[in-house]
Amino acid sequence: MSRESYKTALIVGTGSGLSASLTRLLSRQGMRVAVAARDTDKLKPLLEETGAAAFAADASDAQAVAGLFDAVQQRIGDPDVVIFNASARLRGPLADLNPAEVQRVLAVSAFGGFLVGQQAARRMLQKRRGAILFTGASASVKGYARSAPFAMGKFALRGLAQSMARELSPQGIHVAHVVIDGQIREAGREDPPAKPDSTLDPDAIAQSYLDLLRQPRSAWSWEIELRPWVETF
Amino acid sequence: MSRESYKTALIVGTGSGLSASLTRLLSRQGMRVAVAARDTDKLKPLLEETGAAAFAADASDAQAVAGLFDAVQQRIGDPDVVIFNASARLRGPLADLNPAEVQRVLAVSAFGGFLVGQQAARRMLQKRRGAILFTGASASVKGYARSAPFAMGKFALRGLAQSMARELSPQGIHVAHVVIDGQIREAGREDPPAKPDSTLDPDAIAQSYLDLLRQPRSAWSWEIELRPWVETF
Amino acid sequence: MSRESYKTALIVGTGSGLSASLTRLLSRQGMRVAVAARDTDKLKPLLEETGAAAFAADASDAQAVAGLFDAVQQRIGDPDVVIFNASARLRGPLADLNPAEVQRVLAVSAFGGFLVGQQAARRMLQKRRGAILFTGASASVKGYARSAPFAMGKFALRGLAQSMARELSPQGIHVAHVVIDGQIREAGREDPPAKPDSTLDPDAIAQSYLDLLRQPRSAWSWEIELRPWVETF
Amino acid sequence: MSRESYKTALIVGTGSGLSASLTRLLSRQGMRVAVAARDTDKLKPLLEETGAAAFAADASDAQAVAGLFDAVQQRIGDPDVVIFNASARLRGPLADLNPAEVQRVLAVSAFGGFLVGQQAARRMLQKRRGAILFTGASASVKGYARSAPFAMGKFALRGLAQSMARELSPQGIHVAHVVIDGQIREAGREDPPAKPDSTLDPDAIAQSYLDLLRQPRSAWSWEIELRPWVETF
Repeated sequence: MSRESYKTALIVGTGSGLSASLTRLLSRQGMRVAVAARDTDKLKPLLEETGAAAFAADASDAQAVAGLFDAVQQRIGDPDVVIFNASARLRGPLADLNPAEVQRVLAVSAFGGFLVGQQAARRMLQKRRGAILFTGASASVKGYARSAPFAMGKFALRGLAQSMARELSPQGIHVAHVVIDGQIREAGREDPPAKPDSTLDPDAIAQSYLDLLRQPRSAWSWEIELRPWVETF
Repeated sequence: MSRESYKTALIVGTGSGLSASLTRLLSRQGMRVAVAARDTDKLKPLLEETGAAAFAADASDAQAVAGLFDAVQQRIGDPDVVIFNASARLRGPLADLNPAEVQRVLAVSAFGGFLVGQQAARRMLQKRRGAILFTGASASVKGYARSAPFAMGKFALRGLAQSMARELSPQGIHVAHVVIDGQIREAGREDPPAKPDSTLDPDAIAQSYLDLLRQPRSAWSWEIELRPWVETF
Repeated sequence: MSRESYKTALIVGTGSGLSASLTRLLSRQGMRVAVAARDTDKLKPLLEETGAAAFAADASDAQAVAGLFDAVQQRIGDPDVVIFNASARLRGPLADLNPAEVQRVLAVSAFGGFLVGQQAARRMLQKRRGAILFTGASASVKGYARSAPFAMGKFALRGLAQSMARELSPQGIHVAHVVIDGQIREAGREDPPAKPDSTLDPDAIAQSYLDLLRQPRSAWSWEIELRPWVETF
Repeated sequence: MSRESYKTALIVGTGSGLSASLTRLLSRQGMRVAVAARDTDKLKPLLEETGAAAFAADASDAQAVAGLFDAVQQRIGDPDVVIFNASARLRGPLADLNPAEVQRVLAVSAFGGFLVGQQAARRMLQKRRGAILFTGASASVKGYARSAPFAMGKFALRGLAQSMARELSPQGIHVAHVVIDGQIREAGREDPPAKPDSTLDPDAIAQSYLDLLRQPRSAWSWEIELRPWVETF
């Protein structure tokens, strides 16, 4: 049994602490890591800590995403691993939602996932090797009231991931979707002592992503879900 | 037990014979029916046969959809029933897809569903009564290889429908999603004698839509699926 | 489009009002109806009202179920429609459950479904025609805490129904599973005025069963779900 | 982030190579491992290799399972980890199945899972700590034609696992269900060179079980699925 050992990674989208945890964990494995976000200013401490490279890009813009992959290729080489974490959320009664904002949620959460997944696949297909991970949420499998746009974006991303897994797995590319069912703990925040570990520690999530990346191809997961022990589901 | 009895209906999207079958069946129930499509020219025989009203509209354009509902309201009154059948499909290896075409699939299949659903909900919420049906496909629950955009659009539409059902059902509005798992028979086409009824008769589908519309509110379905007896699943 | 028109029905299991509602509705359609239960004494008023025939049988006993189908065949002919409503429930913390009672739940809810389904299938396969409906519950698709045995029984019954649908549909036999998500209203009980129709009217459920039975084979459902408009899901 | 570190494990059911791979892997982690099977004779080489303890027990017999846990407790202490691998399979046209054999499949695959899970839970609840893993199959989520009994048993086991996860996770016990979608490679067998890794290497599966066991409680999976890269799904 030979476990996978990838050398380079691109992480798209930041916001929650998950991308930072992933950057740290993959860097500690000896991988060269690139991080892409619309605004890279806030990433400076992370870059200094990990040596990761940062790129500014709008994941919902086809040209920008193609340019991002070119830039990453020049800096650290084509990524063996691509992780798509970007998403946008919009809540409210259906009748009150602003269509332009709904369109934006779909553009970032779903179309952005397609653009990043396509660029990743094009490069990985040449070597018939690599891994593409998509970050889902409770809303990926359950459409909550007053949260239609987020459900649309996350359901669509799951459909993309499943279709890509069916198409690309037999070509050597591991595609997986992670349903994160609960709130991710923010840096500096603590869970109440009466409910320890009631939010998802982003370092714990990152570890499960690494476990996925190391699965031998004879036993790949296309979907796993993660939730805190005390989460109602 | 009082079965629902709606008076007016708007059917959005044509192409397969399903919209035509629905127009005929609902008209025969005594309902006033409006049909919306981007191109209404081909609808003439159906309009003459059924007396339905036709409206030209692009379901993915927020202004156009708002205008459509205004026009329908003036012609037949606010629709008690709204059925969203529009969708766009795009096949091919993921790496070869044209991003602009993928965007178009999402706009028609998912964002269009939101626009139509929102306009319908706004009007129905005033009376706390009505039904909104969305037409899904096998791809609503299974992402097939080389069919990522269609899976994205159909998964998103299902997420929308589920979220709307959770939000609007307790306000008196029946929201349902129909997974059509198989090919809809085209007008004038026959199934091979060795495989009779191996495609879905659009009249049979329409009957199940009517069954849904007539469900009393104490026992509503939010999702049903339909497939030919000989379909592999 | 030819809608199905069955002549004879066997309904197995009583308790909730669903079997009574089905007996009434199918009888009113002109069908000859047989009802089977472990205890048929309480069925007298229903039999007088509808003219249905009653048979005592333990659905979890292979000999008894075979004998039931023989007796039904002699009285009303082989049933075109068989509906399995029997189930047993057991609640409590997992650690406190009595294994013998858990075994009983599985025997009635799952093994009984197999026995009835098998006898039905054997007879229907000769004519390549008929319908077999299984009654599920919320627990068919969601395993609730402190309700493991019921989840086991209902998940198993759903697995049976799905497997039978895949095997028997192409042989002309319609197999369907109905997920009833909510409480069925008991005879003589009323919903509170502030929450009308918050329980499922068994007559409304029965209507959806009849709708299923009348689906043409070009567009069969294998699963539908039913819940009250105000039910949280 | 503190990863779980369990000391003792009980693995129930052997047959495929998965139990052997788990025994080896958990032993290598320094855990004391017990293995239970109806026939322990064939386990001798594994016991000599790993130092694991073997126990003869019929998992579908309540007394025997209680006795097993007592015996394990005396030999290696109460198990921190319990893995249920036992199952029985039966194929054939529904009409031809022998009811007694169907009952046996349910007894081993589902009721046995309950008995083992209950004994495990009783002991773990005292420490509010431990992990219980159930081995599922493609048939856990899809009922295939001519395989109704296996679908019944595996659906039921999944319902049990989900119910247990909802009940026991908030009490500190990690319950997880693994859907193994494909054939497990048998010892000594090789995949054809044209389709390398087309069967699941049991060592690879075991690694994912260990990954599950090491998840911190802030991010537990209750279900993952595993399949070979080339498997159609």
